[in-house]
Amino acid sequence: MARTAKSKGKNSLTIGIDLGGTKIAAGLCREGEVLHKVVVPTNAAQGFDAVVAAMAEAARQAMGDTDPAAVRGVGVGAAGQIDSQTGAVLYAPNLNWRQAPLGQKLAEALRLPVRVVNDVRAATMAEWKYGAGKGLHSFINIFLGTGVGSGLVLNGTLCEGATNTAGEIGHICLDPAGPLCGCGHAGCFEAYSSGRGIENEVKRRLQAGAPSALREKVGARLDQITGPLIGQAAREGDPLALEVLAWAGRHLGLVLANLHTLLNPQKILLGGGVMALADFFLPAAREAMHRHILSVADRGEDLLGRARFENDAVLLGGSALFA
Amino acid sequence: MARTAKSKGKNSLTIGIDLGGTKIAAGLCREGEVLHKVVVPTNAAQGFDAVVAAMAEAARQAMGDTDPAAVRGVGVGAAGQIDSQTGAVLYAPNLNWRQAPLGQKLAEALRLPVRVVNDVRAATMAEWKYGAGKGLHSFINIFLGTGVGSGLVLNGTLCEGATNTAGEIGHICLDPAGPLCGCGHAGCFEAYSSGRGIENEVKRRLQAGAPSALREKVGARLDQITGPLIGQAAREGDPLALEVLAWAGRHLGLVLANLHTLLNPQKILLGGGVMALADFFLPAAREAMHRHILSVADRGEDLLGRARFENDAVLLGGSALFA
Repeated sequence: MARTAKSKGKNSLTIGIDLGGTKIAAGLCREGEVLHKVVVPTNAAQGFDAVVAAMAEAARQAMGDTDPAAVRGVGVGAAGQIDSQTGAVLYAPNLNWRQAPLGQKLAEALRLPVRVVNDVRAATMAEWKYGAGKGLHSFINIFLGTGVGSGLVLNGTLCEGATNTAGEIGHICLDPAGPLCGCGHAGCFEAYSSGRGIENEVKRRLQAGAPSALREKVGARLDQITGPLIGQAAREGDPLALEVLAWAGRHLGLVLANLHTLLNPQKILLGGGVMALADFFLPAAREAMHRHILSVADRGEDLLGRARFENDAVLLGGSALFA
Repeated sequence: MARTAKSKGKNSLTIGIDLGGTKIAAGLCREGEVLHKVVVPTNAAQGFDAVVAAMAEAARQAMGDTDPAAVRGVGVGAAGQIDSQTGAVLYAPNLNWRQAPLGQKLAEALRLPVRVVNDVRAATMAEWKYGAGKGLHSFINIFLGTGVGSGLVLNGTLCEGATNTAGEIGHICLDPAGPLCGCGHAGCFEAYSSGRGIENEVKRRLQAGAPSALREKVGARLDQITGPLIGQAAREGDPLALEVLAWAGRHLGLVLANLHTLLNPQKILLGGGVMALADFFLPAAREAMHRHILSVADRGEDLLGRARFENDAVLLGGSALFA
C-alpha cells in the first residue's frame, strides 16, 4: 500500500510551461499548485532551436533537484495554432513559427513526454481541472485581454474543432458595419470588448472631439492611451471613459446572451487583464445579457463566473495535460 | 452463427414516432429505413391520455404483425422541452402539456422501452446516424422552418445543454434594433431567416409601399402572404421577393460564419421547408458567410451541406435512439 501511495505521489508531479512571445514561464506543479516557477525571456528572434533550448533549461531549473523520473510529463500552452495530436506549432505569429515540431524537439531535449496545446485552451484546462470550472461538464472560458479568445468545454470534452480553430470568439461578427478589427474584418467582438478594442474606441471618440479628461492627460499623443489610463479616468468619473467601458460591456453582454442561447453551458467564466476594469463594464454586460437572453433559459446571475487563475493559468493548464 | 445473424436482425427493428401538434407519424424502422409508416391526427385537444393512446395505436399499426418482442424500443421526437433522462415532456406549447410523463405512459401502453427527445435533436440524430452527418464528430444541423432550430453534435456528443435548451439558435440576437421576434425580443435570427421572418419582412415592405407583383396577388389581404407565394413571386423575378430572400440569406450567412468561427464544426447542414427557396437565398448566404468568416478558418464550400431527411427526419431520429 505504501508503494501505491508513493507511486501516486511520484506521478502527480508535472511540468507546465507557458510559452509567450516575450516570456517563458516553467513550473513544477502538483495537482493545480505551482511548487516552483522559473521565468526567462523567450528571445524569439534567436529562432526555434534557441527557444526550445531555453524552454528545456527553464523546465530543468523548475525541477531543481527533483528526479526527472518522478515527473509524469511536460505540458506546454502556446499562443497560436497547435496540432495537439503531434505537438507541432502549425502557426504562431508572435514567434514567427510555421510547422515547428515543438513537442518532438522538447521531448528529445528533456527525455520526458511532452504535450502542447493552444494557450487559451490550456488556461481553460486549468480552470476545468483546478479552478472555477472544476466539476462542470460544460462551460465557456472567455479571456478578455489585448484580444479576446475562449475555450469551450461541452459535454465533458474540450472542443478543438475540425481544423483546430474552435473558440475563436474574438472574431465572431457582431455588426457588419462595426469598427474595424485587427483581422481585417469589421465588427468583430474583439473590436469592442478587448483591451485594444476599448483603447481604439476611446481614441476614435477623442478624435471626434468628445470631451474627456484623457485629452489633458495625453494631449495629441493618442498612442499613449492605455487600458490602465482609461481605468484611472473611469475611476475619476470621466464620462468618455465610462461611456466606452459601458459600450464594451453591452457588446460583451450580447455575446454572453447568444452563447447561452446557443450552447446553454453551466457557466461562462470571464478572465484576462480587461477584468481589472470589470467594475465599469460588467454592470452594462449583465444588463444587456438579461435583455437579450432567451427568456425561458435565463438562469440569472448563476451563469457568470470569474476565472480563478491569472498569470499561472496557461502554465497550470499545461501541467493539467498530464494530470 | 445463424442465431447471431437472426438476433442481430431482430434487434435492429425499432419504432420511431414524430409527435407533432397536428399529426403523429409512427414508423417501423430498420437502420435508417422506414419499413412501414402510419400517420394519424394528434387531436391534442382531447388531452394527454388520448394522445398517448393514439401514439400507442399508431405504433401498433406500424408494427403490423411484427412480433413486439422483435422490436428493440420506441423513440419519440416531440416539439418542446423534453427531459430525455426521464422521457417527460417538461413543456410543449403546441400540445399545451407541462410535466407530462410521456415516456412512462407510452412504455406502459406498449410494454416496450421508450425514449423521448426534442424533435430538432431527433432530426439531428437521424442525420448523424443515417444521413448527411454520418461519420462526423462535429456538425450543426440547422432547421429553417416556420421558426429556426438547431441540433449540435460536438466532439462526438449531441449537446442538450445545462438546462436542456442547447441549439436554440433561432433566438440568438443579430441586431438589438432588428425586427421583432415572436419571443418578444428584437433582432432574433428567426426574425430574419425563418419562414415567418421572411413573410413578415415582405409584409412590412409592402406596407411601406414597396412595389411588388405580390400586391396584385393578395391586394390588401397581407395575411395571404405565404412562403410558397413569395417563392412563386421570386421565380417570376419580383424584386421585392428577391430582395427579402437575399436579406434573409445575408443574415443566415452571418450566422453560419459565426458558428464556424466559434465552433469550427466539420459541417453545417441546412434543412427545413424554407430550403425550398434555397435558390433565392443561399447565394447571398454563401457570399455573406465568406465575407464574415475568420479568414484563416474559411474552408470554402466544403463547410455547408444539405440535410438528407425531410418529412421522416424526426421519426428516423426517434428510431435511432435505439440503434
